[in-house]
Amino acid sequence: MQPIPFLSQSDEAEQAAWVEALSLAMPDERIVPFAALGRDDGQAARVAIVANPDPAEVAQLPGLVWIQSLWAGVERIVHDLQGFDGTIVRLVDPELARTMAEAVLAWTLYLHRDMPAYAAAQREARWRPLDYVRPQERSIGLLGLGELGRAAAGVLLQAGFPVRGWSRTAKTVPGVETLHGEDGLADMLSKTDILVCLLPLTPQTRRLLGRRTLSHLPRGASLINFGRGPVVVVDDLIALLDDAHIAHAVLDVFEREPLPQESRLWSHPAVTVLPHISAETNRTTAAAIAAANIRAFRQSGAVPKGIDRTLGY
Amino acid sequence: MQPIPFLSQSDEAEQAAWVEALSLAMPDERIVPFAALGRDDGQAARVAIVANPDPAEVAQLPGLVWIQSLWAGVERIVHDLQGFDGTIVRLVDPELARTMAEAVLAWTLYLHRDMPAYAAAQREARWRPLDYVRPQERSIGLLGLGELGRAAAGVLLQAGFPVRGWSRTAKTVPGVETLHGEDGLADMLSKTDILVCLLPLTPQTRRLLGRRTLSHLPRGASLINFGRGPVVVVDDLIALLDDAHIAHAVLDVFEREPLPQESRLWSHPAVTVLPHISAETNRTTAAAIAAANIRAFRQSGAVPKGIDRTLGY
Repeated sequence: MQPIPFLSQSDEAEQAAWVEALSLAMPDERIVPFAALGRDDGQAARVAIVANPDPAEVAQLPGLVWIQSLWAGVERIVHDLQGFDGTIVRLVDPELARTMAEAVLAWTLYLHRDMPAYAAAQREARWRPLDYVRPQERSIGLLGLGELGRAAAGVLLQAGFPVRGWSRTAKTVPGVETLHGEDGLADMLSKTDILVCLLPLTPQTRRLLGRRTLSHLPRGASLINFGRGPVVVVDDLIALLDDAHIAHAVLDVFEREPLPQESRLWSHPAVTVLPHISAETNRTTAAAIAAANIRAFRQSGAVPKGIDRTLGY
Repeated sequence: MQPIPFLSQSDEAEQAAWVEALSLAMPDERIVPFAALGRDDGQAARVAIVANPDPAEVAQLPGLVWIQSLWAGVERIVHDLQGFDGTIVRLVDPELARTMAEAVLAWTLYLHRDMPAYAAAQREARWRPLDYVRPQERSIGLLGLGELGRAAAGVLLQAGFPVRGWSRTAKTVPGVETLHGEDGLADMLSKTDILVCLLPLTPQTRRLLGRRTLSHLPRGASLINFGRGPVVVVDDLIALLDDAHIAHAVLDVFEREPLPQESRLWSHPAVTVLPHISAETNRTTAAAIAAANIRAFRQSGAVPKGIDRTLGY
C-alpha cells in the first residue's frame, strides 16, 4: 500500500508528534513526512494528511483525490490551496467541541463571577465584594451554531444561563432562542450581557463585530472571542472598552498570532489576552478520526464530505 | 400575634434590606428590629430571626424557644450564644448550595484552564500557550460532604473531573470516592490535583490544613478555600507556595475579614484573594425558608431541627 504523505509547516517537534500519533492510530499505514517521501510515492499518493501545509508541496502530489486536514479552521487552507481541486476534509472532532464548550463555560463564569474586578481589587489590596447576579439574570449571546456553538449552548444552559444563538442561516438548537440574518443580529446583541463569538472566518464574518454592531450591546456587556481574530475590528472594540460601553473582552484569537508585542491589547485593563488556547486539537482523538476516514477510503473508496469552499466551512 | 424580633449587628442598610425581605416573605407576621421592640413583646417572643446577633440582646428575650439564623455558618453564633439554651436553626438553602457549587466550578475551571498563568504571561506581554490537560486527568479532592459539598461534587462530575471526597465521618455521595478520618485524609490529599475546602469551622477543623497535611498533596497541586479561614494555617500555606510545592491558592475566607491591608496574601503571586463572595446568602430565598419554618411553628408548634453545638454544625 502506498504511504500517506504528511504535510505541515509546523516546527519539527510538532510534526514528529503528529506522525507518531497518526502512526499509532493507523498501524497498517505508513505516514511519511513530505521531505522523506520518494518521488514515485508522491506521484501515486491519492490521500494526504495535512496540518497547515505548504501549497507548493501539495502541488507536487498530482494524484491526490482528497486531503484530511487536522485543523478545524479552514480559512487558511481554502486560501492557500486555491490551486488544489480535490476534496478538503476538515477535522470534526467531538473532543474539540467538548474542549471549546469547556472554555466557553470557564470564561463565561470568569466574567459572570467578576474575576477581572476581583483581580483588580486584589492588586490594590482592596476588599470589595460585589453584588451576586444569578445566572438566570445573565443573558448569553452565542454567535455561530455549528458543532462548537451547539456544544457551548449545552453547557451554558446546564449552568443556568439563558442562551440566545445567532447564525447566518436559520438553525434550531434545543433550549436556545435562535435568530439569523442582519436584523436577528442587532436584536440578539441588544439583549446580550455576555457575547460569545465562535464564528469561522469567511468573507461574511470578516469585520462583522465593529462599532456599528457592537454598539447594539447594552452598556456594561462583555465579549468573548474564541472564533477568529479578524471577525472583530480591534480599534472599534478598544474605543467601546475605553467608553466603558463594553466592560471587558476576553480574546483568544487575533489578526496576527502570536499577538505582536506592541499591541495595545496586552496592557488594556479591560482585556484578557489568551494565546489561542480555548480549544487545542487533541492529537489522539484527531488522529483516530483521520484514521477512520482513511480506513473507509481504503476499503470502499469513499471520500468523506469536504468543505464548501464558497461558504468557507 | 406577637411580633418577631430581628436581631443583627450588620449595618443599618443591611438590616433594613433583611426586614423588608422577611416581611415580604411572611406578610402575616410583623418583623421588628430589636431596637424598636416594646418591652412586653420582648418578654413574650418565642422565636426570633437573627443575622450575627448581639448576645446581650438575645439575653433580653427570655421566652425564646428557638432562633432562626439567616447564616449558613454557625461557629460564631455557637460561640456567642453559649448562654442561650434554646434551639439554634441555621439556614439550609438549596440556592446557597447552588451558588457555592457554581463558585467551586468557576474557580476549579480557573485553575484547570491555567487562568493565573495566562494573566501572568499577559502582564509581561508574553504569548505562552500551555499544554491542555483533559478534566479526566485532573483529580479534585473535596473536603466536606454536607449540602455544599454534595452540590459541588455534582457540578464537578458533570464537567468531567474525577472527584474524591473526605468528611469527618463516613458518607456516600453518588459518583464520588469517599474517604474519612485521618488516614483517609492523607490518602485523598496524595491523589489530589485541586483541593477544594468547604469545611465548617469546628474544634476539629481549626488549623486542619497546615504543613503536615498539605505536604501530602503532590507537587504542583492547588488549593481553593471556600470554607472558613482558620481551617488553613496561612504561614504554612505561604511556605508551601514559596517552595512551589503548592502551585496556587484561591482564598475566599480568612481568619480576619476584611483581610487586613498588611496581609502578605494580597500581593503573593500564587494567591488569588476573594472578598468572601463564593456563596452569598440570597435574601429572597433565605427569607422564604425562614418564613416556612415560622409558619410551621405557628401552626403546630414544631421547632425545626437545630444545630448540634458539640459538632458545631
